[in-house]
Amino acid sequence: MLTGIFLPELMGTATLLLLGCGVVANVVLARTNGHGGGPLMITIGWGLAVFAGVYVAYQSGAHLNPAVTLGLVASGDDLGGDTAVKVLVYLAAQLVGAILGATLCWLAYRDQFDAEESDPDDKLGVFCTAPQIPRTSSNLLTEVIGTFVLVFVIIAFGKTPSGLGPLAVALLVVAIGASLGGPTGYAINPARDLGPRIAHTLLPIRRKRDSNWSYAWIPVVGPVVGGILAGLLAAAANYA
Amino acid sequence: MLTGIFLPELMGTATLLLLGCGVVANVVLARTNGHGGGPLMITIGWGLAVFAGVYVAYQSGAHLNPAVTLGLVASGDDLGGDTAVKVLVYLAAQLVGAILGATLCWLAYRDQFDAEESDPDDKLGVFCTAPQIPRTSSNLLTEVIGTFVLVFVIIAFGKTPSGLGPLAVALLVVAIGASLGGPTGYAINPARDLGPRIAHTLLPIRRKRDSNWSYAWIPVVGPVVGGILAGLLAAAANYA
Amino acid sequence: MLTGIFLPELMGTATLLLLGCGVVANVVLARTNGHGGGPLMITIGWGLAVFAGVYVAYQSGAHLNPAVTLGLVASGDDLGGDTAVKVLVYLAAQLVGAILGATLCWLAYRDQFDAEESDPDDKLGVFCTAPQIPRTSSNLLTEVIGTFVLVFVIIAFGKTPSGLGPLAVALLVVAIGASLGGPTGYAINPARDLGPRIAHTLLPIRRKRDSNWSYAWIPVVGPVVGGILAGLLAAAANYA
Amino acid sequence: MLTGIFLPELMGTATLLLLGCGVVANVVLARTNGHGGGPLMITIGWGLAVFAGVYVAYQSGAHLNPAVTLGLVASGDDLGGDTAVKVLVYLAAQLVGAILGATLCWLAYRDQFDAEESDPDDKLGVFCTAPQIPRTSSNLLTEVIGTFVLVFVIIAFGKTPSGLGPLAVALLVVAIGASLGGPTGYAINPARDLGPRIAHTLLPIRRKRDSNWSYAWIPVVGPVVGGILAGLLAAAANYA
Repeated sequence: MLTGIFLPELMGTATLLLLGCGVVANVVLARTNGHGGGPLMITIGWGLAVFAGVYVAYQSGAHLNPAVTLGLVASGDDLGGDTAVKVLVYLAAQLVGAILGATLCWLAYRDQFDAEESDPDDKLGVFCTAPQIPRTSSNLLTEVIGTFVLVFVIIAFGKTPSGLGPLAVALLVVAIGASLGGPTGYAINPARDLGPRIAHTLLPIRRKRDSNWSYAWIPVVGPVVGGILAGLLAAAANYA
Repeated sequence: MLTGIFLPELMGTATLLLLGCGVVANVVLARTNGHGGGPLMITIGWGLAVFAGVYVAYQSGAHLNPAVTLGLVASGDDLGGDTAVKVLVYLAAQLVGAILGATLCWLAYRDQFDAEESDPDDKLGVFCTAPQIPRTSSNLLTEVIGTFVLVFVIIAFGKTPSGLGPLAVALLVVAIGASLGGPTGYAINPARDLGPRIAHTLLPIRRKRDSNWSYAWIPVVGPVVGGILAGLLAAAANYA
Repeated sequence: MLTGIFLPELMGTATLLLLGCGVVANVVLARTNGHGGGPLMITIGWGLAVFAGVYVAYQSGAHLNPAVTLGLVASGDDLGGDTAVKVLVYLAAQLVGAILGATLCWLAYRDQFDAEESDPDDKLGVFCTAPQIPRTSSNLLTEVIGTFVLVFVIIAFGKTPSGLGPLAVALLVVAIGASLGGPTGYAINPARDLGPRIAHTLLPIRRKRDSNWSYAWIPVVGPVVGGILAGLLAAAANYA
Repeated sequence: MLTGIFLPELMGTATLLLLGCGVVANVVLARTNGHGGGPLMITIGWGLAVFAGVYVAYQSGAHLNPAVTLGLVASGDDLGGDTAVKVLVYLAAQLVGAILGATLCWLAYRDQFDAEESDPDDKLGVFCTAPQIPRTSSNLLTEVIGTFVLVFVIIAFGKTPSGLGPLAVALLVVAIGASLGGPTGYAINPARDLGPRIAHTLLPIRRKRDSNWSYAWIPVVGPVVGGILAGLLAAAANYA
């Protein structure tokens, strides 16, 4: 379980967050080649971060996301037995991997984080999501809908033959980012948001702002609810 | 027919419209992360909306579009028997799914629709298409040409082996949007335009304008004509 | 030969030019949804125009380009016998298809071509290529290099297994456009440039400029030379 | 070894650099069609340059990069025997190919290089990378991290079935460029940086600046270290 799930899942999620936070850093921080690259570049970058992460975590099934793990269980997947323990192993690996990946991103962009011109809000935005218009019910609902689509379609992949492999989930993440990322920045993954937020709190980032912990529960609860609902509906509608 | 066609087709079309309307909302409404993302982002977003929708509707063959259903019938496909009834089931599922998907998009972007800064024309543009230069004959012709390409190439897919699966139709929709979406916004799908227009009329959207019903028949009739012509020509030219 | 080569090749090349000229019209003409979409959108649009065209012309091998036809012959492909006649059939189909596709694009964008705000130079740019810096030797060389890469890599596809099908050539065309399209607009296909130039001359386009016939030979000769060189080198280096 | 490794590897790396340097030329030099295309266009262009290069070098395994060659050896791959000699053949072919490809790019963009409006810094930027914020330790670390991801995921590809072929590595390069290219321009390949830098020094480019040789060792040493670390970890973690 250590080498079959924990390590691949940790390394895959670290890859996801290194590249995912990285594209935001490239576009929003000062003095980068990607500065001003725009939302399409960010959206494509996160999708391809998933692409790379899935290959790295292939051995563990590449959940990379507690909402996927819990959604699969809700759909009736027992993860090959010892379900409760395995869920905990997946979730722990995902959270530790996310912290590690965000930390690596900070190391790769260290000088840009230190640059005078980089804004503290943008620095936080490299790590975790924030709503454009803060309103608890709406923000939660947007995260529920986005994660529902993610987990439902991932489960539907299993019934559809194609040779795309990890590209399919990458394109799905681009789709959700482009289409549903507008209001809250599409966490759609509790580890993707919580892990980097912990990293932001702990790391000695120069001139950082607070880590906006009052918002932190929304990109955890919303995706968990959305993922479980997707798993339940997928089972009921015979997609699982 | 309920679980094999109606439900998958409804859910797939709802996915298509949730994500398709969503990318427009992300790019055109105020106070989103995607604001100003530009036409390429919209075009890619609609293509990937099709990508996700096709997986969800895989069981029903993923028409997602009355012009595809009617074009297939025109090409000689009997939809497995009971053709007339099945056509009605497909069309009903597509229309209901489109209304549902547009409504979910409105829920995901509720605060942005409510924001002072969002323009009533842009709000309508999230739901349905409008011509840049209104002129009935030209607008109809553009929709006929765009839908002809869509349906003809979809039928041609059947003769060409590749491992792309639903990606092929997604890329085709990106192609048509990028190349033929300029004048009328490429409805190329009666349900895609009519369903959200109905939603726009019915939903309590704050500060909305009228739903431009005088234009509504063009993105229905144009795609139907284009799809049927494509089916007939595909059969005549031995593509079907 | 009529139904196996001429018609599919004609329809595929028409599809290529309808969508290829279309994306330029969408981005450069006034009063479109894609206005200002930028060079990446044009580059992706042309690549996907190839994607769609290849499916339509699958039965004839989808050359869509005299430089490909001549390059294949130069590499030792006899096109299944009757080579000289078949070459003429391919080239005729490609030229007629290109004229037809450009004409369809004009029909789809009729109101935009007629709009006061659209510039005569931009209108010509929808149809055919022009150098940013006119200089015969450089322009020829750029077209030779671009077409060499196109035809050489297309021949190399045959030795490399992948499930991409027509997507591979589409991505190759995006690559060449993004990387080598800067100086001359990457005709890399005599039919793609000559056919629409003829259409521009013949069609009753409102307020059009002359069709710049003095440049027309360069995007014919350059691609033919590049394609034949690629075929010869591919054969010598054992790629064919 | 000459025809099985040296020539394909040389031609593939030349293709990579022709198209890779080409997209930078198209976006940054004056008087091109791609001028101002932005960082996403550059990132996609480099990814597709790899795509084309991999097909051309398919026979030699398409390393195209000393960091990949050395990383594979570090992971336990003996390259089919005679490892030390083969490594030298790969590295020589990659360096010569990179010089050749950059030279071809200069020829294709000759008039743009000569144009008054093109900036000497931009001209150098077509050939080789430079840090946005020069600081040896950070720049090295960023190159180590980027190349580690490249080589580790390439090795992981071997364990994951998909029909993507050369597209997988192309998308990985887009991912790394979008996400980790911000600080140093992602050489992630010693030949990609050193070869064109040599070309910049030797070629009679009008109004060129010096070739910034004091930075040249970083995009060599960083990628070599990153590639070897990736190979070692991949072997230890059972990915190789």
